[in-house]
Amino acid sequence: MSKYKLICTNCQEEYMEETINFRCDSCNEPLELEEVREGSIKEGNPLRQGVLERYQDFFPYLEIDKDLSLQEGFTPLISSKALGEEYGIKLYFKNETTNPTWSFKDRGTITGIIRAMNLGYKKVGTVSTGNMATSVAAYGAKLGLETYILVKEGIAEEKVNPIAIYDPILIKVDGDYSCLYDESLAIGHENGIYFINSDAPYRVEGYKTMAFEICEQLDFQVPDYVIVPTSAGGDIRGIEKGFREFLNVGLIDKLPKMVAVQAAGCSPIYNAFKDNKMKMDRVENPNTIAHAIENPYPPSGHQVLRMLKRNGGLALAVSDDEILKAQRKLASQGLFVQPASATSLAAVEKLYRDGLLKEAESVVCILTGSGLKSTKTLEEHRLKSYGCKLDQLNEYIKKVGR
Amino acid sequence: MSKYKLICTNCQEEYMEETINFRCDSCNEPLELEEVREGSIKEGNPLRQGVLERYQDFFPYLEIDKDLSLQEGFTPLISSKALGEEYGIKLYFKNETTNPTWSFKDRGTITGIIRAMNLGYKKVGTVSTGNMATSVAAYGAKLGLETYILVKEGIAEEKVNPIAIYDPILIKVDGDYSCLYDESLAIGHENGIYFINSDAPYRVEGYKTMAFEICEQLDFQVPDYVIVPTSAGGDIRGIEKGFREFLNVGLIDKLPKMVAVQAAGCSPIYNAFKDNKMKMDRVENPNTIAHAIENPYPPSGHQVLRMLKRNGGLALAVSDDEILKAQRKLASQGLFVQPASATSLAAVEKLYRDGLLKEAESVVCILTGSGLKSTKTLEEHRLKSYGCKLDQLNEYIKKVGR
Repeated sequence: MSKYKLICTNCQEEYMEETINFRCDSCNEPLELEEVREGSIKEGNPLRQGVLERYQDFFPYLEIDKDLSLQEGFTPLISSKALGEEYGIKLYFKNETTNPTWSFKDRGTITGIIRAMNLGYKKVGTVSTGNMATSVAAYGAKLGLETYILVKEGIAEEKVNPIAIYDPILIKVDGDYSCLYDESLAIGHENGIYFINSDAPYRVEGYKTMAFEICEQLDFQVPDYVIVPTSAGGDIRGIEKGFREFLNVGLIDKLPKMVAVQAAGCSPIYNAFKDNKMKMDRVENPNTIAHAIENPYPPSGHQVLRMLKRNGGLALAVSDDEILKAQRKLASQGLFVQPASATSLAAVEKLYRDGLLKEAESVVCILTGSGLKSTKTLEEHRLKSYGCKLDQLNEYIKKVGR
Repeated sequence: MSKYKLICTNCQEEYMEETINFRCDSCNEPLELEEVREGSIKEGNPLRQGVLERYQDFFPYLEIDKDLSLQEGFTPLISSKALGEEYGIKLYFKNETTNPTWSFKDRGTITGIIRAMNLGYKKVGTVSTGNMATSVAAYGAKLGLETYILVKEGIAEEKVNPIAIYDPILIKVDGDYSCLYDESLAIGHENGIYFINSDAPYRVEGYKTMAFEICEQLDFQVPDYVIVPTSAGGDIRGIEKGFREFLNVGLIDKLPKMVAVQAAGCSPIYNAFKDNKMKMDRVENPNTIAHAIENPYPPSGHQVLRMLKRNGGLALAVSDDEILKAQRKLASQGLFVQPASATSLAAVEKLYRDGLLKEAESVVCILTGSGLKSTKTLEEHRLKSYGCKLDQLNEYIKKVGR
């Protein structure tokens, strides 16, 4: 296995080997694997093939073994004619809720954890209270690794149990949660734990496969926009890199414009973007129902700003009301997602109202996680149901029919 | 579209067209579509192909249109070496929790609903409190149909909202719930609503695709056993029929033995099977944590008994303790399922203890639905978590490490 370079996304400093440092020693900005420039899609039947096997040319630095995986990826790309017509565009939803732990995180967990194993680690960990905690706990269990999940003291018990069922070492940490990201890397270094946090370089790599699948599913017709709910920034970085690598090898002939969407109650990347700044300010009092993307100072935020500038992309913020409305609208298409994921459709609505979408342009929304992850939010909707006695059911149905 | 026969599973009476009667006029037993005897798998890339398109030869009576679907199916078949070695077998899990509404029901909902649309219905419905309600509500919304979901009065609000988000006409019916299956068919007939209940013939057809995929995923080496959590009986009937049809067309050379597993607290099929009877008695006081398979008098129960006899299969019952233990064990493999789904692994344990599994035999367990569907049950486990202050985290991790 030849060595691949990690390059600082900011100062371009190069690192020949990554062990447990995920950020640049000089400027503390995130590192990124050098771009793949040669390769193709492996022939084969996705029913008998893992996603990493199919795209293995784009992971030259991983020792891939199909038996390690829970068969993440190969998720549906759903075309919504009804909503597309409403906006005069071609609208697609990449349904990441059908992954093994029901969020996109699995794609990055598998690449991160394979890297940890390739380096000889027996212990892995993550800092997360939601999708990533579940994902790392699941893969850690599957692979027999000692798995540390660091969550915030005070987390609701209903969120803890679906993580704890995988039997990780689950620690509720009392203190300034925003320090945990850096703290975990230091602790991991000292204790031989490979922390696969939100924007760890080998996690970000896994997200490339969303781009690869979108290209295949659209017959290599690159969409005009790809909209990504954005928190730490790992997700949108990985997807954009995937498109870049398919462009490098000639599988596609342009890049889509990337759109980072955040909740208005916690939008540090958008706040900087709208003021044309390259540095974020920390959000002091985050407040949104979209908890899965409620990060007041995203570790890859600056790199997302740099990437959007290079890419010609956009950052947007949407309100909780807009998020709830989009959640209902997605459900009307048979897609029940968590509030954070609904920001992507709310962004389409905003782009449309602002006149930024041209007739017949194509837009892909990433639906990051299942609605079952946060059923509490459903109380925000006034959802209808009826009641009647069995012997009156026939008459009742005639009455309530639409 | 030529007409296909529906045949009574009991008296073999033939029906040339099905409209809204799903059961035999003479003996009230379930009808079944005649077996397909010619066909093959359509070439193509599953990433760009619906499951019904790939296997369209086996659905000659449906007008299939990929845009109707939410891209159900093509779920992972996970090989578990660790647990397989424990039992001395080759053990596989068919992970149906990665469907669009996170259960196997979607495979039957799409075929049932396409049939309803082919017949010109604008209204569909179902009787269910769980996975099937969610599935029919989702597909009904996607396809713009007026969708009636009949649930039991007293259902927990936390179960209602994830159905109601799709905006069906959701009616809580007060009365003897076990009458609702028959009642719904009568009401549907009168009001032009196509009820796609648990063992409706065109729903059962959709479940064939699980068998088709298993065959492909195992390179057409048929497993020795396929274990199916069994409630109404539609699921196991559909899977078994799928294997029969692949045998008919020469894609495989034998049938697997089918195993119907029920919860001991509600096991009408098992109760009859163990006494070598072909008629069930109604279970008077069902009591199990596996609510999704808690059917006291399954509408396809007698047909499951007949099928198991023909097939050389088995019925089993497992206790709630065994179910909980299996749920933990599955989570240790990264698979978090609802209690009903864990019965399949509990059945493996039972077959193993009873000496019924031969060395190196291959067993496929169907994991029917996601653990996120019933997080309440997790309170039954005593799940571990730890707590510590941030400044003590480093020391704490050294202490709690395994």
